[in-house]
Parts: sequence; structure tokens; C-alpha cells
Amino acid sequence: MKVVYLDNNATTRVDPEVFEAMLPLLTDQFGNPSSAHGFGALAGAALRNARRQLQALIGAEFDDEITFTSGGTESDNAAILSALQVMPDRTEIVTSAVEHPAVLTLCAHLEETRRVKVHRIPVDCQGRLNIDAYRAALNPNVAIVSIMWANNETGTIFPVAKLAELAKEVGALFHTDAVQAVGKLPMDLKSTAIDMLSLSSHKFHGPKGAGALFIKRAVRFHSLIKGGHQESDRRAGTENTPGIVGLGMAAELALKFMDEETPRIKWLRDRLENGLVQRVPNSFVNGDPLERLPNTASIGFERIEGHGILHLLDRKGIVCSSGSACTSGCAEPSHVLSAMKMPYGAVRFSFSRDNDQEDVDRVLEVLPAIVEKLRDASTSEPDSWGAEDLHCVPGLSGRRTGHHS
Amino acid sequence: MKVVYLDNNATTRVDPEVFEAMLPLLTDQFGNPSSAHGFGALAGAALRNARRQLQALIGAEFDDEITFTSGGTESDNAAILSALQVMPDRTEIVTSAVEHPAVLTLCAHLEETRRVKVHRIPVDCQGRLNIDAYRAALNPNVAIVSIMWANNETGTIFPVAKLAELAKEVGALFHTDAVQAVGKLPMDLKSTAIDMLSLSSHKFHGPKGAGALFIKRAVRFHSLIKGGHQESDRRAGTENTPGIVGLGMAAELALKFMDEETPRIKWLRDRLENGLVQRVPNSFVNGDPLERLPNTASIGFERIEGHGILHLLDRKGIVCSSGSACTSGCAEPSHVLSAMKMPYGAVRFSFSRDNDQEDVDRVLEVLPAIVEKLRDASTSEPDSWGAEDLHCVPGLSGRRTGHHS
Ligand SMILES: Cc1ncc(COP(=O)(O)O)c(C=O)c1O
Ligand SMILES: Cc1ncc(COP(=O)(O)O)c(C=O)c1O
Repeated sequence: MKVVYLDNNATTRVDPEVFEAMLPLLTDQFGNPSSAHGFGALAGAALRNARRQLQALIGAEFDDEITFTSGGTESDNAAILSALQVMPDRTEIVTSAVEHPAVLTLCAHLEETRRVKVHRIPVDCQGRLNIDAYRAALNPNVAIVSIMWANNETGTIFPVAKLAELAKEVGALFHTDAVQAVGKLPMDLKSTAIDMLSLSSHKFHGPKGAGALFIKRAVRFHSLIKGGHQESDRRAGTENTPGIVGLGMAAELALKFMDEETPRIKWLRDRLENGLVQRVPNSFVNGDPLERLPNTASIGFERIEGHGILHLLDRKGIVCSSGSACTSGCAEPSHVLSAMKMPYGAVRFSFSRDNDQEDVDRVLEVLPAIVEKLRDASTSEPDSWGAEDLHCVPGLSGRRTGHHS
Repeated sequence: MKVVYLDNNATTRVDPEVFEAMLPLLTDQFGNPSSAHGFGALAGAALRNARRQLQALIGAEFDDEITFTSGGTESDNAAILSALQVMPDRTEIVTSAVEHPAVLTLCAHLEETRRVKVHRIPVDCQGRLNIDAYRAALNPNVAIVSIMWANNETGTIFPVAKLAELAKEVGALFHTDAVQAVGKLPMDLKSTAIDMLSLSSHKFHGPKGAGALFIKRAVRFHSLIKGGHQESDRRAGTENTPGIVGLGMAAELALKFMDEETPRIKWLRDRLENGLVQRVPNSFVNGDPLERLPNTASIGFERIEGHGILHLLDRKGIVCSSGSACTSGCAEPSHVLSAMKMPYGAVRFSFSRDNDQEDVDRVLEVLPAIVEKLRDASTSEPDSWGAEDLHCVPGLSGRRTGHHS
């Protein structure tokens, strides 16, 4: 059975060209870039090249603004913890209610153990940040704002450039978790006030185990992992040279394909959304209809949980997700959908340049029957939800009535 | 020119079988192990297998005592920081003067920023830990002892099983940085009192970017990197599945080859040491002559620095190190040799199962002339060293007179 892989926000296939680029580092060129000999220097040159490839993708002014890490989670942790260290007089963090656990779990821990005050800015039922609440939270005691560029579950894009400028007004550092945005959206960091940005290689056809943290030159930084002098003292530990070279090549390819692939991917995604909403009664699209990642579809189905759909699709060889991969494994409800006051679970289909129309049409072929079957089997009453909960379901009263447009 | 690679303590070549094992994870089996679907479950099964392979190598009682990390440095940081968190009433750390920067830099940072008291136990001129000083430092205020299993520069092995038992007597946790020992020495952790152990894949023919922290079941642990629920909440972030599978296979191979290869590697190393000491006047072997890694030779040459030798050997295609790779790149003097009161730099030759007699004989062929040349060119006077400094040079007064036997 051919697998239809529509879970690209969880992880992506390593591009064969990325694999090719990694190959020498996994075989002959195994030197340690910190070594003083010529054999190690080869690996060092490969790292420099990767840094420049990544610099180009995110539009950083200098390649030394990029520090390689083991992935998005480490980058998020490093950014936030560094800010608290370099601004010891400030003890507040501003973030959103819909961040990835890489940010939210750390914030909760800091709240408990270090008496840091955390502001979690709410979102509306389309997942959009409440800007008034954001402005109100900003104050001269805020060390760092950490707001994601795009949400992993709904694809909703936050206006990070503008949010960064507001953060500057109170002297706070601005960090963005751009794990879902890098490689999908054009970026030109040098023209923004963003101080730090996290990214993860495996979300854009690079290998797992590699990521980076962009740190603007003017920004002071304290390393999370201490030891040797690698990465200009910003990240100790022997460099994952194959992973970093893979990340570099993935960046180069993402940039190369962006103009051409983005409209095609968006077209596939829209075809899926429109097709499903037409074919499945009482289904609806989550997230901001305007400012949304081109590759992400989060679809809610009244009266049924995402998990059951996931399971039946899986049996048909269709791979997707009910919420983010990191939380779906543990059957916890999605904090993102809760923050959006969505009473129903959702299924996330996330595309990449590996997908084509056949993938979409296969989902359109099998999903309507699955939803019908689950609804027939469902014992839950449609009116077991209170009216309050329901006010945010676009399919019932939200988007259709224009209440939240 | 064929490269003679004798820098295996800096990093090793990925074994072709390790590469083969990683291949599917870098191509078709790219799923996210945290995903709820069958495609992700494939990757999850690969992780479980790797955990068992590593368990076998280190003789852990349970496979869930292994947490995968990005490498040795991260594991060291995680172990020490966790201990301070789970034992908040204890504010002292005992370590040695010759640890890797992954431990020493973190300790210095904790001393500065958190008023942790750090005891750095000295070593003698053969690199052996001063056990009296160790006993004296232990007290009920020590949260954690972190002492390496084997030193990366000299190969000297510390009696960690015994040190761990002494640490238990004051209720301290015992961590060992076994980055240089794993894969080179037989281990049976379940029969020891060691609570935590760090290891790094690329030091035994696995890929860079993967490592592990062994945490005994009874030991409480707080994660360094926070986020999703990966690794039973002990290490957040999408798992580096190819790296972990490579680490697992590297562990399996290390175990398989250990009995057969260890004597061969030791024979090569001894042939090099004896050959050099015979051929080069006033040269000597650093480290404990009895308790030493079978693969490591640290050779001192009176009146000349390791760096110059390194450079000339490099030109002849012989790759080795003057000190540890992590510090040699930055031309800092080796803190290990300083702690041993060695007035001369040293050249480290470190072997692996990739080496053969030809490699040794090539070094024996070219090195004596290089030393002679450097000594001729040297302007430094032999007696520019004070008598005090010299008392620890085995070639002059130490090992030969039996003073330190
Ligand atoms: C003794 C020791 N500890 C820790 C490390 C750090 O390991 P890694 O560079 O893989 O993080 C090394 C290697 O450089 C080492 O030799
Ligand atoms: C928005 C966001 N942030 C952070 C992460 C964490 O990245 P990684 O799992 O590569 O550490 C993810 C992916 O799971 C994500 O979607």
C-alpha cells in the first residue's frame, strides 16, 4: 500500500539531495572540526558553508548570527534561558497560549522554580493573537517575549515583525519559535527587530538532530550547554557535522524551491480543505483564513474526536495527525484547540513539496465515509456542549456569521 | 597520500555497518516516533532496539535507564544540573582537576552564578586521582560527584566503582563522564553504585550528534531541555532517529569486537610507545602505566611543544592531537598536563579498530626526524624550567627513579 504522507509539520522526508550532501561527512570526512589538523579543517569548512546556506534562507545579516543546535526544542530553551541570564533584573516573560511545549513547558518550569512571571497571551477562535492583551502585558520588567512565527497545529501566522517592534519599546528581547515557518515563508531577518529565532532541520527536509538559533549580533547570549569552545562558545559539544551539512543543504533547497512550490502546495492544501468542507457536513477549517501557512490544514468535524479519524485513515495508508505530533502520542487534548475554545478535536493535514494531487484526492475519497461511520457509532449527543463552548465553532456560529471575520 | 588517522579520541570513523543501519532512517523510515500513526511507530521500534543495544554494552539493568541526548557534553551538563535540582539542600560538587571542559566549564559557571562550591581533586604526575583529597572533600553537603572514567588526553583510568561507593557514604549522587571509556572498556553498571554515566556515539564509531545519559532507576532526574514528552520526559525534542539507531549499532559492534580487538589495539599502542621512547631521546609516556585505556598514547618530548610536532606530522599525512581536540583548536595549554605538572606539551596518538601495524610503523619512521629538527630549531634552553617544575617529568626524575611507581 502506497503511503500518503500528510504529516509534514511533524517531520519531513530527508531530501535525497540533502542525503547526498551528508554522505561524505558520514563516511570519509569524519574529522572533528575542532581539531588542529587539516583533516579536521575539512569538516570545519563544511560547517562554514552550511552557515551561509542557512543565513541566505532566513535573511540574516551575518553568518555568525547562526548557532547550530540539536533542534528546535533546544534552541527555544537556549533563547529563553539566555535572556533571563543576560537581563537578571527582569523577571517576566511574555508568550502566547498556543506555543509549542518547547516554550510552554519551560515557562511553566521557570514559573514554579524561579518565580518568573509568565504572561500567556490568549488567542481568538481563529487562533489570532489578542494584540490588546499583548500590549498590556509588555512592561519594563519583561526580559523576553517568545511568540511563534506560525502555529504548528493550525498554521496561523503571527505578526512577529510588528510584535518585535512593540517588544523593543519596553527594552525586552524578542524571540520567535519559527520551527514551522522556516522553509515555508520568505524571511528577511535583517530588516526586522527580531533578536532570536529558533528553527529545526527536520521540518524542511533536513535530518533530525540538527537545528539552529539565530542570535542578532548586538544581542548578548549565554550558552545553555557548556563545555568546549564550539560555535563561538555558544553551544558546546562536538558538532554534528553530517546533521549540520544536511541542514545547510535543506536550507538551500527550501530557498530554491520556495517561489515555485509555495503556490502549488497551497493549491493542494486548498483543494483538500474545500473538498472536505463540501463533502463532509458540519466540518470546518481551523485557523486564520488569511494569515496561515500555505501547507497546513486543520479540519474540525463536529461531534467526533480527531483520534478516531487518525486511526482509520492510518489503516488506509493515510498518515496525518490529530494535533501536534509531540502531544498526539500521549492522547492529551490539544492546548492549541483549547485556547481557541474549540470543542471538537481536529485533524491536521500538512503538506510539503513531496505531495501531489493524488494524495489529496485519496483523502477526499476515503475521509467522508470514515467521518460518517464514526458519527453513526458515536454515542455523544451533539448538544452535550454548552452554548458558551459552541460560540467559537466557525461551522456553527463563528466564521459563517462573520462574527470573527 | 594515505592518511594515517591516529586521533580516535577526538572522533572516530562511522563504521560502515553503523552507516548501513542508519540508512533506512535517513531515507524511507523518516517518521516521527512521537506520532500516533503506524508510520511513526516504525521509528519508535528502532529507538527501542537501540536502547537495548546500548544497555548491553554498558551492562545496565534496565533499558529505560538510558536517555538519548545529542552527545557527551549535553549528557554531562544534564547530569550535574539535575543533581543540583533534585538535591536543593546540597550545594557542593566534587570533581577532578582533569575533567573535560564539558564538566569543568559548567562547574566554573555554577561557582560564579549559583555559589556552588566546587572541589577539584588534584592528580599526581601520572594523572592518578589523589584519593585522600577525594575522601576529604566528601561531605553531606555534596550533591554530586562527577569524575571521569578515563581521561581523554592521557587515557588514565579512574577507579570509578570504588569512588562511587565512597560517594554513597555521604549520600551524594555519583556521575561519571565515560565518553572515552564506553566501547573501550568492559562495563557492568548494574553491579556498581554509579548513578549516572555520560557517553558519546562518535567516540566509538557511531555518528556525531548522538549520545546518552545512563540514569539508574532509583535516581530522580530533572531534564535539561524541556518541551514534549520524548524520552519519558527526560529529554525533550524530536528524537534524532538516524543518530540514535547509529549509536545503537555502534554499541552492538563495540561489544562484539571488544574481546578480540582490545589486545590488538593495545599491542599497536605499546609498539608505538616503546618504539618512540627507544628512537627519540628524552621522550616519555604520560599517564598511569598500569591503569590506562588500551588505545591511548600520550607522549612528551623534552624541550618541544606538541603543537609543532602536530603540524609537521599533519604534513606527512599523520593525524593526531596535542591534547584534546576540544582545546587544541584554540592553542590553550592543556589543563590536564598542567594538573600533572608536566612542563612539556604532549602528542596524543589514539587508536581504534581501524588502525593497523602499518600506521604505527609510519609514525616510527617519520617522528624521530621531526623531533630532532624541532629541537635543533628550538631556541628555548633546556634549563629554563625550574627544578620544581621538573620533578614530575618521568623522563628526568619521575618514573625512571621509581619515585612515583
Ligand atoms: C572525556 C570527554 N568528555 C566529554 C566529551 C564531550 O563529548 P562531545 O563532544 O561528544 O559532546 C569528550 C569529547 O570531546 C571527552 O573526551
Ligand atoms: C512550533 C514548534 N516548535 C518547536 C518544535 C520542536 O522542534 P524539535 O522537535 O525539532 O525539537 C516543533 C516541532 O515539534 C514545533 O512544531
